[in-house]
Amino acid sequence: MLPLRALFPEGAAMADDLCRVDFEPVGKRVDVPAGTTLLEAARAAGVELASVCGGHGHCGRCRLAVLAGAVNGPTEADRSFLSASELTAGQRLACQARLGSDVRVHVPPASLVTSQRLQVAGEAARLASDVAGDVDAAVRGWLVEAPAPSLADHRADFDRVCAALAAEHGLTGLTAAPGVLRQLSPLARRTGWRLTAYVRGTEVAGFAAPGRAPVGLAVDLGTTKIAAYLADLETGTELAAAGIMNPQIGCGEDVIARLAHAVREPGGAERLAAAVRTAIDSLAGDLAADAGVARDQIVAACVVGNTAMHHLLLGLPVRQLATSPFVPATARALDVPATDLGLDLAPGASVLLPPCVSGFVGADHVAMVLAAGLDVAADLNRAGHVAIGLDIGTNTEIALSRRGTLTSTSCASGPAFEGAHIRHGMRAADGAIEGVRFARSKNAELRVAQLRVVGGGKPTGICGSGIVDAIAELHRTGLLNARGRLDRDAPSVRRGRDGLEVLLAPAAETGNGADIVVTQGDVDEIQLAKGAIAAGVRALVTATGTDPAEVGEVIVAGAFGTYLNLDSALDIGLLPRFPGAAYRQVGNAAGAGARAVLLSAAQRSRAQRIAERISYVELTAFPGFQRLFAHAMRFSEPPAYETRAYQTRAYETRAYETRAYETRAYQTRASKPQNDTTGG
Amino acid sequence: MLPLRALFPEGAAMADDLCRVDFEPVGKRVDVPAGTTLLEAARAAGVELASVCGGHGHCGRCRLAVLAGAVNGPTEADRSFLSASELTAGQRLACQARLGSDVRVHVPPASLVTSQRLQVAGEAARLASDVAGDVDAAVRGWLVEAPAPSLADHRADFDRVCAALAAEHGLTGLTAAPGVLRQLSPLARRTGWRLTAYVRGTEVAGFAAPGRAPVGLAVDLGTTKIAAYLADLETGTELAAAGIMNPQIGCGEDVIARLAHAVREPGGAERLAAAVRTAIDSLAGDLAADAGVARDQIVAACVVGNTAMHHLLLGLPVRQLATSPFVPATARALDVPATDLGLDLAPGASVLLPPCVSGFVGADHVAMVLAAGLDVAADLNRAGHVAIGLDIGTNTEIALSRRGTLTSTSCASGPAFEGAHIRHGMRAADGAIEGVRFARSKNAELRVAQLRVVGGGKPTGICGSGIVDAIAELHRTGLLNARGRLDRDAPSVRRGRDGLEVLLAPAAETGNGADIVVTQGDVDEIQLAKGAIAAGVRALVTATGTDPAEVGEVIVAGAFGTYLNLDSALDIGLLPRFPGAAYRQVGNAAGAGARAVLLSAAQRSRAQRIAERISYVELTAFPGFQRLFAHAMRFSEPPAYETRAYQTRAYETRAYETRAYETRAYQTRASKPQNDTTGG
Repeated sequence: MLPLRALFPEGAAMADDLCRVDFEPVGKRVDVPAGTTLLEAARAAGVELASVCGGHGHCGRCRLAVLAGAVNGPTEADRSFLSASELTAGQRLACQARLGSDVRVHVPPASLVTSQRLQVAGEAARLASDVAGDVDAAVRGWLVEAPAPSLADHRADFDRVCAALAAEHGLTGLTAAPGVLRQLSPLARRTGWRLTAYVRGTEVAGFAAPGRAPVGLAVDLGTTKIAAYLADLETGTELAAAGIMNPQIGCGEDVIARLAHAVREPGGAERLAAAVRTAIDSLAGDLAADAGVARDQIVAACVVGNTAMHHLLLGLPVRQLATSPFVPATARALDVPATDLGLDLAPGASVLLPPCVSGFVGADHVAMVLAAGLDVAADLNRAGHVAIGLDIGTNTEIALSRRGTLTSTSCASGPAFEGAHIRHGMRAADGAIEGVRFARSKNAELRVAQLRVVGGGKPTGICGSGIVDAIAELHRTGLLNARGRLDRDAPSVRRGRDGLEVLLAPAAETGNGADIVVTQGDVDEIQLAKGAIAAGVRALVTATGTDPAEVGEVIVAGAFGTYLNLDSALDIGLLPRFPGAAYRQVGNAAGAGARAVLLSAAQRSRAQRIAERISYVELTAFPGFQRLFAHAMRFSEPPAYETRAYQTRAYETRAYETRAYETRAYQTRASKPQNDTTGG
Repeated sequence: MLPLRALFPEGAAMADDLCRVDFEPVGKRVDVPAGTTLLEAARAAGVELASVCGGHGHCGRCRLAVLAGAVNGPTEADRSFLSASELTAGQRLACQARLGSDVRVHVPPASLVTSQRLQVAGEAARLASDVAGDVDAAVRGWLVEAPAPSLADHRADFDRVCAALAAEHGLTGLTAAPGVLRQLSPLARRTGWRLTAYVRGTEVAGFAAPGRAPVGLAVDLGTTKIAAYLADLETGTELAAAGIMNPQIGCGEDVIARLAHAVREPGGAERLAAAVRTAIDSLAGDLAADAGVARDQIVAACVVGNTAMHHLLLGLPVRQLATSPFVPATARALDVPATDLGLDLAPGASVLLPPCVSGFVGADHVAMVLAAGLDVAADLNRAGHVAIGLDIGTNTEIALSRRGTLTSTSCASGPAFEGAHIRHGMRAADGAIEGVRFARSKNAELRVAQLRVVGGGKPTGICGSGIVDAIAELHRTGLLNARGRLDRDAPSVRRGRDGLEVLLAPAAETGNGADIVVTQGDVDEIQLAKGAIAAGVRALVTATGTDPAEVGEVIVAGAFGTYLNLDSALDIGLLPRFPGAAYRQVGNAAGAGARAVLLSAAQRSRAQRIAERISYVELTAFPGFQRLFAHAMRFSEPPAYETRAYQTRAYETRAYETRAYETRAYQTRASKPQNDTTGG
């Protein structure tokens, strides 16, 4: 180790000195002690830098450029993500750079969380309002006016307010928890005994000044991302929406890694619960600020997530969820006091967690089925019309509705579509390549004919839909064979630092002055992901005895699914081709479902019925799944559908092997960073 | 200040060295760092030393004798409670003595909390079982056996247990909080899916191994003392009982001082809540250990206390409770999750707080009325039969039942009956003088004819019933005049260090080698206390238009009331004489009521009805109360009952003055120590 002083130029600040950091072009500024990392400084300044790994130098997402001032020299992590010229130009990972003086930094859009496209626009937003129908939330606000106490009327504060609520609104038998009673006495004396009472059933969930509408929080708790929405519980109006990364990602990128962390690491489960609770609480605060409402107006919340996210949020045991036969501690709907989850909402606010289906099919899937109307499709029971819904994410859940039944499954598709484990992968933020078309030049070399970039500026990386598009083009133009190998002899395929690669954008044309390429490793990642999803769909079709010709509709939900090029997805076999199917992209249907359940008692009952109706197919117990998966990894026409009958629950002994294989696929790739992360 | 070294003899230990302390005759031993006080060392050793003031040197209760080894020299606090000869003999206050080496100390019985007589014997215990009638607790235990999960049956853990509970016991629609679900998965796998489920309504409150009965905790939360009982919820059998000092006492000895602390001191309310919650939690642990049950078998609790104790326990606002018109935040019954109060019981355990009546009449009074059957007496509606119940404590509540009505009031009687503010006062532990008879010697000097000592050994102090007895005797023998002044010219009255005093036991005959006396100051304290209670009874009789001849029964409840000599209490006017009344001492009726409510749904409903029936008389608004109080302080026959009609609620402006006077009475006495305590 060098002594601290040697890391910094002459005149640098020492620990305990404050350093000023200016973030450009966002125009934020903060003073923090010398030695603080730029990532911590950004957090303190309210600049939301992307950081998938939580500041461990494993994800390379938090890059920025130091324009002036001193930080320490490049670390090994810097060198693994940044080229020598980038480093010379002052580029650094924010998590690696410790302040040695006042500095001025440039934050590229791709490194900002806030510029990420949110899955709230378009079809999904329409879905939410369509689905909710009449607003009929569990909590209502009531204006009440009570006489002030006197020696002639020394009823208790709560008793006098209850008497007024009974007289004015016919509400009787009301109760309130101590936290709610804590609000009442000082508030009533401040407002002259005119109050809004938030009432859920016979329980007062909170008190507020007159004129403050009750507000609800809907959360789609994904393995990688958390999307949250604030809605007026009286009108259903959406007041604010925001998305952040799930901070648990520092403890593992997929569900299996998270569960392993919870089971194996001392205090792991508590750490995971605390991380996600804090994230949701801070999202709630940000949304409330955006919408101009007080935190204690938030009287209800609805959180949907897969079963692992659900259990980790609630601090439920997960050992049995991580080992065969993979059963949840509970699959029933839960109403939990917000305070039990450390959420600073109205003191009597409760958090609804709709029912899960199985260890690997959670409430987010139930919400997706609801928002996509797959249960309605099943009810219509039209012969010859089968609908399939997919929510593509780190875990992909698939539902098939046919002749009055709902059948679902789940497969581990990994975080590649979020840009993780992709050489120049990034999320769908400004600067991300989201579409690619190639053309051949005269000397048979490929050239990029079209490059669609989020935000329209120079590209800085490639997001999930872009990588799918690029790989589909490589396949179409013959550079990628059926086994997924790049053609090493093609003029456009060059040998890069990590093996074979194809250039998408040369350094001169990119926003960060570096080549953007697709590598053989990127292709391998996408191959695993699309293989898992396609095999899941095929297993479900087979298990339900569906004739592919019956499939009339394929609904693609989820953040990634929204911007996916359907043709490319079909061409690489990520989505199977059904001859009679219409393909529909509906955005964050799970989030839309959560909002619908938040806003309406009828939708809550519907979610309950959906969970009860769904039959779950465990892929690890599905006959021949391993072969299906291997086939589905190929880049070619999908194999003919299996026609032999699905023998359910007959393959217990093979179950564990298959799952282990799926898991290992991602764990191998992630092994180095993950070991470091869990240790850090 | 002397340097530390100078305080200790040669060879003494320095900070960081461990010192060994041997406590005799209890035979406990502990190693603690040098500089630790003997009080802290006692706590660490599990020796429960009495400490009313919480270790501030204000109460003088924690005295012990250092037999060997070095502690610092006497402090000012030591000198104010111990004579020069006592100090020379090695006596010290444990809270003042810091360890300078290994020491051996003798702990006199009077300094031990554990030897205190508990208010669970006799009439009160009978009351509890009589009152409860049929046991019908809110929580029942059900034995259940579920099949283990497999790939062929991958229902969630809770779902399979619920299915078994439905099939075996017909219980449906069950829910469970996350904390309860947290128990289930690991426990079921340990017990092979044979479990006890504790069910309250449709909620599972906890799981346990088979054969573990549900247990309940009843708590009488007094201003000075906390009494707690553990009962089997299936049989009603009492499993264990214990009492400790209310640790809030360090923040003020009476209700008014506590409320002032909560309102004025930063963090005061939180400190008071934390102190009493920790105390109840540790009592629950001790009781469970005594009874040989696990903490998580405790599935229900019932806590009764006065309204201030209730609010401070729950963390409810108290500003409005401390200022006119003294209204509670709520008076309704509450069911609060035990976890919200920091109690480590079954994860779904709930704490029932029965309803209060007013700001100064709490659930402990409701419980007393229930246990004493005053509501039944009222229902009987016998003309000419009036029953009065008093629960004598730091705050004394009084109820009067007459012709179908219940009327109650409350008065601040102070902690003198607990031995506080009495020169040689102590609680009713071994060594306490609890009865006194005088005889006159030939030279007209008094001599003690009879001295009844708790435990039968040598006396070390005097408890509440003893001081009442002694003062009654002084009055009977003419040494005390009607105004409560000792006769300075009588041969038996001598001039002591704090003014006039009468010797009860000479140093040679006491357990601690010091004279035990009754001082003029002691008489003043008792005068204030008995005046407040007697004036309260008189006001209630007047307010209800009761003819004293109608009073057929006076029920004396409370710790102190149990051992009180009724003749003495009547002679000094602490209890009024009613010509036709039977006087009955029933022990801790509030605790008995709490146990009854814990054990029976019917008793819970009855408590609700009692709270609704009670009319509250605010003494501060009672016409002429100040004069009543002044009269009641005299040692003579009580004045004739006021016959003019009670004009209710007409004296708002005088209300505050009167209360302030009552409060000042105690605050003046306590002013010096209290200032120090609240600052510490």
